[in-house]
Amino acid sequence: MSGFTAPLSAAAIEEIVAAVAFGHDGLVPVVTQQHDSGEILMLAWMNRTALRATLAEGIAVYWSRSRMALWRKGETSGQTQRLIDLLIDCDADSLVLKVDQTGVACHTGRRSCFFRAARAHGIATVAPVLVDPDTLYARTKD
Amino acid sequence: MSGFTAPLSAAAIEEIVAAVAFGHDGLVPVVTQQHDSGEILMLAWMNRTALRATLAEGIAVYWSRSRMALWRKGETSGQTQRLIDLLIDCDADSLVLKVDQTGVACHTGRRSCFFRAARAHGIATVAPVLVDPDTLYARTKD
Repeated sequence: MSGFTAPLSAAAIEEIVAAVAFGHDGLVPVVTQQHDSGEILMLAWMNRTALRATLAEGIAVYWSRSRMALWRKGETSGQTQRLIDLLIDCDADSLVLKVDQTGVACHTGRRSCFFRAARAHGIATVAPVLVDPDTLYARTKD
Repeated sequence: MSGFTAPLSAAAIEEIVAAVAFGHDGLVPVVTQQHDSGEILMLAWMNRTALRATLAEGIAVYWSRSRMALWRKGETSGQTQRLIDLLIDCDADSLVLKVDQTGVACHTGRRSCFFRAARAHGIATVAPVLVDPDTLYARTKD
């Protein structure tokens, strides 16, 4: 697959944005995956503005539901996600973003947000903290 | 990671269900990934009943938002998903299901539901139909 070897035209971006079935809240769930290892890094949300910005700028831009604001991933922490590919599912109501993650995706300092797993005895933490969260953020949470 | 080598106890299942932050609609988004290849197969939704059934039975059971009913994946098509692992993210509001997919995940007969990709000229289909959908379903859509 070729992915994003060149910037998309404005027409291509609008075709893609128009094809996505955003929910009643104007959002679509986005699964972010490290492009080469296949590791799932996080699940986040985009509105039309975030999707346009992601495609135009070639870095992941989400909509933060907690902050109710556009969320340029890594703007505070430096842990940016360079866009490699964007996939749309059969119902066009969810997206996969293949990225090249700088550093760690999770605000806890772990590579992936999915660091807890169901085990026979209950829930276990299965991934280590790679970066001290205090070194990632001054005062704001990414 | 050990995954589900043995059935979970009822207490472990209830600990996991209690830890998940279901939305106001009682649902949580679930990313389903082929455990060995890392391919993302689909994004679906679970309510508490679906999550309990998945953990107790060791096969993926979702909540179908379109049919408003419990959805035992593959019940009609035979394309079941055997549970290998279940991961919870930092906010506990999304899950990753690692599975062993029998056949194809998508009702279009493709391995993954994410078969369209953003390309320079717009949207392209990037994965082939592996199974004729007419052979998957008599009258119902899985």
